[in-house]
Amino acid sequence: MKRDFLRLFQILFFAGLAQAQPVAAPPQFRSPELHTDNRVTFRIHAPQATEVSLRGEWMAGSDRLPLEKGDNGIWSITVGPLKPELMTYTLYVNGVPVVDPRNPLVKPGIRSVTSLIDLPGPEADFHALKPVPHGTVHMHWYFSRVTGKHRRLHVYTPPGYDPNKKVRYPVLYLLHGAGDTDSEWITVGRANWILDNLLGAGKAKPMLIVMPDGHPADPSSMDPVLRGQNTKLMEQDLLENVIPLVESQYRVANNPGMRALAGLSMGGNQTLNIGLAHPDRFAYLGVFSSSSGFTPQMQQEFAQRFESLFQAPEKLNAQLRLLWIGCGTADFLYQRNLETIALLKRHNIRHVYKETPGAGHSWYLWRQYLAEFSQLLFRSNGS
Amino acid sequence: MKRDFLRLFQILFFAGLAQAQPVAAPPQFRSPELHTDNRVTFRIHAPQATEVSLRGEWMAGSDRLPLEKGDNGIWSITVGPLKPELMTYTLYVNGVPVVDPRNPLVKPGIRSVTSLIDLPGPEADFHALKPVPHGTVHMHWYFSRVTGKHRRLHVYTPPGYDPNKKVRYPVLYLLHGAGDTDSEWITVGRANWILDNLLGAGKAKPMLIVMPDGHPADPSSMDPVLRGQNTKLMEQDLLENVIPLVESQYRVANNPGMRALAGLSMGGNQTLNIGLAHPDRFAYLGVFSSSSGFTPQMQQEFAQRFESLFQAPEKLNAQLRLLWIGCGTADFLYQRNLETIALLKRHNIRHVYKETPGAGHSWYLWRQYLAEFSQLLFRSNGS
Repeated sequence: MKRDFLRLFQILFFAGLAQAQPVAAPPQFRSPELHTDNRVTFRIHAPQATEVSLRGEWMAGSDRLPLEKGDNGIWSITVGPLKPELMTYTLYVNGVPVVDPRNPLVKPGIRSVTSLIDLPGPEADFHALKPVPHGTVHMHWYFSRVTGKHRRLHVYTPPGYDPNKKVRYPVLYLLHGAGDTDSEWITVGRANWILDNLLGAGKAKPMLIVMPDGHPADPSSMDPVLRGQNTKLMEQDLLENVIPLVESQYRVANNPGMRALAGLSMGGNQTLNIGLAHPDRFAYLGVFSSSSGFTPQMQQEFAQRFESLFQAPEKLNAQLRLLWIGCGTADFLYQRNLETIALLKRHNIRHVYKETPGAGHSWYLWRQYLAEFSQLLFRSNGS
Repeated sequence: MKRDFLRLFQILFFAGLAQAQPVAAPPQFRSPELHTDNRVTFRIHAPQATEVSLRGEWMAGSDRLPLEKGDNGIWSITVGPLKPELMTYTLYVNGVPVVDPRNPLVKPGIRSVTSLIDLPGPEADFHALKPVPHGTVHMHWYFSRVTGKHRRLHVYTPPGYDPNKKVRYPVLYLLHGAGDTDSEWITVGRANWILDNLLGAGKAKPMLIVMPDGHPADPSSMDPVLRGQNTKLMEQDLLENVIPLVESQYRVANNPGMRALAGLSMGGNQTLNIGLAHPDRFAYLGVFSSSSGFTPQMQQEFAQRFESLFQAPEKLNAQLRLLWIGCGTADFLYQRNLETIALLKRHNIRHVYKETPGAGHSWYLWRQYLAEFSQLLFRSNGS
């Protein structure tokens, strides 16, 4: 009976995976295997491969580690102990980047997916699924008059959110990076569990988090003219479609002191461009590892847009309760962020700047920044 | 400036994908590329590979098609024209199954992910994102007293669903297969867009669809004793956790005539076992390509459970408005389904049996079955 059951499982599993007919099952093994001492073993069945290597998000530089070929054509490597975190990794089979065939946990992206490993531990507790009350994540499909297409949107409602109650919640609009989709702040950013944990500990105000798609200009286009319009299209879609949808379907407040805008990398640049132009809409801005000023076009865009604004900083300073900017010193955008800070200082725009020593352009940092930034939001002594 | 922009895009993209440092970008190409005549080109950059092949869900048997190596180490193949559908495919690089590195669209699973191609066309229109009003999909995390762990749950609410209205909606509880997760009925099954389209055409009653996780027994366990308890645990979790959660958080009716239960493969077996035991809870049952009776254990389970029930079919026939069973004649579970039908006939249990000539164990069929079954639900002349 045991053999029957395993055979059924294999047939259903492999039939469900790729084709309607059962296929021969490869040998049984796990990858990744997490050991109790925080070492991790990666394995892949590749009897015909001549070279298999591993690159993990935790590794410095651009090196890859070689896997060793064992019995039954299974290659393996054990690394660590690693610091507990949610981390991407890629296996290379004869040079081809491969999603670990035994691992269902992947990071989505606009162009591909990448394997993830979720190593639990105290350092990663703040974004883990813990025994606290949990909020709900909603996916909406809406027609955007700006793009002429349907777009998707994620919304987090906090635990206890009740559409029948009279209370009106504040909203954090949270933008993703250039390689991401609107699901990224949930699957990798874990915005929902970060807030669940903060709320469970009484460290943040209950809020909605709205995560729109940051690519109104077709991200598969390599047309620089179209892609150059992305920030402008994002501003239109956010103000004309996303915010009205949220404010009509959820019990949320609609004054600037109850709205925040934040984003990472490309979303950081969007936050600066859209947020500084609309302090009447958003009183809190969070700018994580921003790509602002990276190209001459982006520098020009930024300078032109804020020339008049920066000549009268008093009004902006009165409207904005918080302009929070963070960047790692090992980020390839670090110098650009220093230039932005210098620009703000030169024009006396009030802001908070957090520099994280040794940190790169990484989700490690953005999860931490979200946890830190969200605790500062919607407090009576907001700024 | 054009070069700047492309370089930025590449850096942000590749940096965001796998590591904190920029890496050299491989050559530009697309995969899959959909041609207007429904042919499809697959490509992969694998300069060191000696053999690359393709297997697609649309292919009969277990053959693979060889890709041809071209310039720059890019292998390619053009197939079709294919019938418009949502289809899985796998590239094999020196024998290793590979998720297409250029394709972000993947089918999730409990053990791995698989590349998807979405070829639009009239045949696939019923499950495509069309210009009709759209419902919302909600993800809940709840603590299950049955498993002692947190579990995830997807809920579809139809367009126009308003928690403040007095109307109480009917609910379809929809279960997935052995290789699936609770997201499968959305990402591959497209239950939300199928219902959006039916509702837009006035062909179905507005309803919620609740999609629980069908693996309360750890699916990574190969322990047949634990796995053998899965149906029983699923019954408990559904009745004790899922239904109470839904009925407390959504405006839904709580009488059996306003509840349906359906599922595919493993979920079909769960539907039969749970549904027939609880006609006081569910008046409509949908059983798609069920795995019932596949093993001696499952046959025994089924026979024991319904011995007394089948001796008094009148009560069951009076309670059930619809017992709908469907299976393809090319399904490896086809004979088992015929045995189930024979059992029901022998005991005079009223049912509808749909046989689909030539169809296998496939999502092609399950999307069609959902569209057909959901139109029969919650009508005054329900049976």
